[in-house]
Amino acid sequence: MDKILPNIRESILKSGLKDGMTISFHHHLRNGDYVLNMVMREIAALKIKNLTIQASALFDCHYELIEHIKSGVVSHIETNYMSGRIASAISHGILKNPVIFRSHGGRPAAIKSGRVHIDVAFLAAPAADKMGNSNGSLGKSACGSLGYAIPDSECAEKVIIITNTLLPYPLFPASIKESNVDYVVKVDAIGNPEGIVSGTTRITRDPIALKIAEYAAKLIKYSGLLKNGFSFQTGAGGASLAVTRYLKPIMKELEVKGSFGLGGITKYLVDMLNEGYFEALQDVQCFDLQAVSSIRDNPKHIEISATEYSSPLSKSRATSSLDVVVLGATQIDTDFNVNVHTDSFGIITGGSGGHSDTAEDSKLSIIVAPLFRARLPLIVDKVQCISTLGAHIDALVTQRGIAINPKRQELYEILKDAALPVMPIEELKKITEKYTGIPDKISPIEKCVAEVESRHGKIIDCIFAVE
Amino acid sequence: MDKILPNIRESILKSGLKDGMTISFHHHLRNGDYVLNMVMREIAALKIKNLTIQASALFDCHYELIEHIKSGVVSHIETNYMSGRIASAISHGILKNPVIFRSHGGRPAAIKSGRVHIDVAFLAAPAADKMGNSNGSLGKSACGSLGYAIPDSECAEKVIIITNTLLPYPLFPASIKESNVDYVVKVDAIGNPEGIVSGTTRITRDPIALKIAEYAAKLIKYSGLLKNGFSFQTGAGGASLAVTRYLKPIMKELEVKGSFGLGGITKYLVDMLNEGYFEALQDVQCFDLQAVSSIRDNPKHIEISATEYSSPLSKSRATSSLDVVVLGATQIDTDFNVNVHTDSFGIITGGSGGHSDTAEDSKLSIIVAPLFRARLPLIVDKVQCISTLGAHIDALVTQRGIAINPKRQELYEILKDAALPVMPIEELKKITEKYTGIPDKISPIEKCVAEVESRHGKIIDCIFAVE
Repeated sequence: MDKILPNIRESILKSGLKDGMTISFHHHLRNGDYVLNMVMREIAALKIKNLTIQASALFDCHYELIEHIKSGVVSHIETNYMSGRIASAISHGILKNPVIFRSHGGRPAAIKSGRVHIDVAFLAAPAADKMGNSNGSLGKSACGSLGYAIPDSECAEKVIIITNTLLPYPLFPASIKESNVDYVVKVDAIGNPEGIVSGTTRITRDPIALKIAEYAAKLIKYSGLLKNGFSFQTGAGGASLAVTRYLKPIMKELEVKGSFGLGGITKYLVDMLNEGYFEALQDVQCFDLQAVSSIRDNPKHIEISATEYSSPLSKSRATSSLDVVVLGATQIDTDFNVNVHTDSFGIITGGSGGHSDTAEDSKLSIIVAPLFRARLPLIVDKVQCISTLGAHIDALVTQRGIAINPKRQELYEILKDAALPVMPIEELKKITEKYTGIPDKISPIEKCVAEVESRHGKIIDCIFAVE
Repeated sequence: MDKILPNIRESILKSGLKDGMTISFHHHLRNGDYVLNMVMREIAALKIKNLTIQASALFDCHYELIEHIKSGVVSHIETNYMSGRIASAISHGILKNPVIFRSHGGRPAAIKSGRVHIDVAFLAAPAADKMGNSNGSLGKSACGSLGYAIPDSECAEKVIIITNTLLPYPLFPASIKESNVDYVVKVDAIGNPEGIVSGTTRITRDPIALKIAEYAAKLIKYSGLLKNGFSFQTGAGGASLAVTRYLKPIMKELEVKGSFGLGGITKYLVDMLNEGYFEALQDVQCFDLQAVSSIRDNPKHIEISATEYSSPLSKSRATSSLDVVVLGATQIDTDFNVNVHTDSFGIITGGSGGHSDTAEDSKLSIIVAPLFRARLPLIVDKVQCISTLGAHIDALVTQRGIAINPKRQELYEILKDAALPVMPIEELKKITEKYTGIPDKISPIEKCVAEVESRHGKIIDCIFAVE
């Protein structure tokens, strides 16, 4: 007995997929993913219409979705992140109803609570056995953690594993369990290895970004959180990553032994684990090949599911124990609301991912960003889109100074005496505007193309169409 | 932030436990468990009444339940296995309503489907961290796999971890996840190490049992299943375990490389893994210290939950891939129905555990047992209790001969030509009765003290009270 079917088409037919249903995908293969496109081509050929795509994230490689929207195969999208051509098409109003954006914690909460129902999950797996036990650590397309796929595998009516590497039963470790899998399909390739590990996760050499990172590391030093048991997450952007470079000597100097690094894991956190700065890593997603090797070989590098990472319905989650998170922003307003969904013109270029989850749960959330990019200011009166509520952001670090959210008065008091350029966010705004001027107001088209749902299930903002 | 409470009483109060609710326990500490008794004493002191005990198994050490039944603290019991004083008291009619017996697969199915609702799970954990991540591999009371506790941790309203070993966060591997845990209580001791690994799982030296084991190994050899990819489970009884001794040379001779050993794992299967007879072990429960060390140190020794082991609601389970299982019996009737719940007098002494699950799912299920014990015959017209339906039993192996279930005619045809004493079960019964005579009919009291529920949720038999 096994669950192997000869091809994707057969798996779609066996799954009972019908017009109007919801299908899901994960994004661990990132911009190298072949699976979503392969599945959607077969669905289109079978003339199934009006589907909802429930994807943990969508990248430029998924541009074929544009055609499937035009032809009526896809009528709705829910995701945590969206970039490239598909994101741009959404911003230009290609879909009738708004995309629903969730966070990496909000998505598994919506799925587990039953508020989001997945009819068929098509889950790319770098390695699987004939009964459906699957992981991301083995095989030639290894991507490491399968954290975002696990809730789908647990809750979808039908679960189809699509792999390019079938290994003997029982496969171990099993991130996805055979008990949850209906069918297994072997294909020649699930993704382009170069795209899977996108290689953009490198520490910047830009002196402005390095300056920002240095300030952020000092802020952490003086925050009172940098003591034994310290836990840390950083985004994969250049300045965020660079914080680790400045944090290491400080931890060494203070003889601080950290507890865990969290997140999207890069080689910088892997190095810190191997060098003894942290006792463990909790990994929902691997960003580079070093992270992929590490999660395969080092038991201290722990795979966690999206539920365990940041679901607000979990009794506790890894983010519950997180001391400091360093995050990026395209815009921040004077109420500390952060936009990571759109660019300054309101065009969708990203999404929250774990941004709002970690900002809300961590003890100290720090935004690192340059005061302006291409003459567009970071700090504005009102962000184009609220991705993360200002109430959950503690500090903004720029090349010219640090602004502390007024709600964190005690943090302000501590930093006042440190040799750090702490000032009100309004002052940083003024400094910026000397260089950039005040940009013209954008007049968006009054059509909502995407709604941003907080991790607790409430719509907190709407993204409007652009010309 | 942590979930640590100062003592068990506090955790009961915080859990909101009220009269009439259901509380659950697992049996990985076996006859050495202290946790059930500790919790029940506190509950009794708090004067909470009328509870249902939902336990994966109960042993002699849990005899204090008798007092809790008499005083009205406990009014109902559901379990997969029961032995010692509590089992005897149940057989004598101490409870008003019948105990519900399930199988190791039927229990998680009932829990996950919502048919069984657990209000508070009190889960003993040999190691835990302050947020509730727990495993059975570490700590001084290590018991190995926590397979039977996992479904409870996933589905109970409130989950309380009771441990004697708190380790730094994040504990890994985490068999039970912090996302499912409400409170953690540290106590001095969770169990008596000698009882945890009961030491009864030793290969017999009894020549009759060895003869039976040798026949069973030959039956497996000729069955056609002993080829590369072979998978195997054996019960922990002496004769069942002895089968591994005879199977090893046959596998060596035939150059068979097995796929996996399954079950309750003993040192005999661990040895076979280490010597290359199997590629992996799938372990829902460790029976001895060698198994405990192995699951801690060898990644090929895989922990599986009860859901993954044998739940009929799983899309597949480990037992779905099982070739051969060797099981015991206290009685078997001429329709091959097997009793492992009671002794020949109808007194409860055990339960199905994984008996009926593995018998139903495996390709070949073999009962090994001597024709009589203490002048009581194995083969009877009608078993005192149907634990496993005859339809799921393929062969009976005794010291005088092998009986094949007539529904397995093709197996009979194969074995006819092997040099094995194959004969009808009725003939084995006649041979036995020459020694034992025909025992007197037992006239039970017409009060049902326990119902046996099949893994699919249907009541298949009733156990009556005894004098």
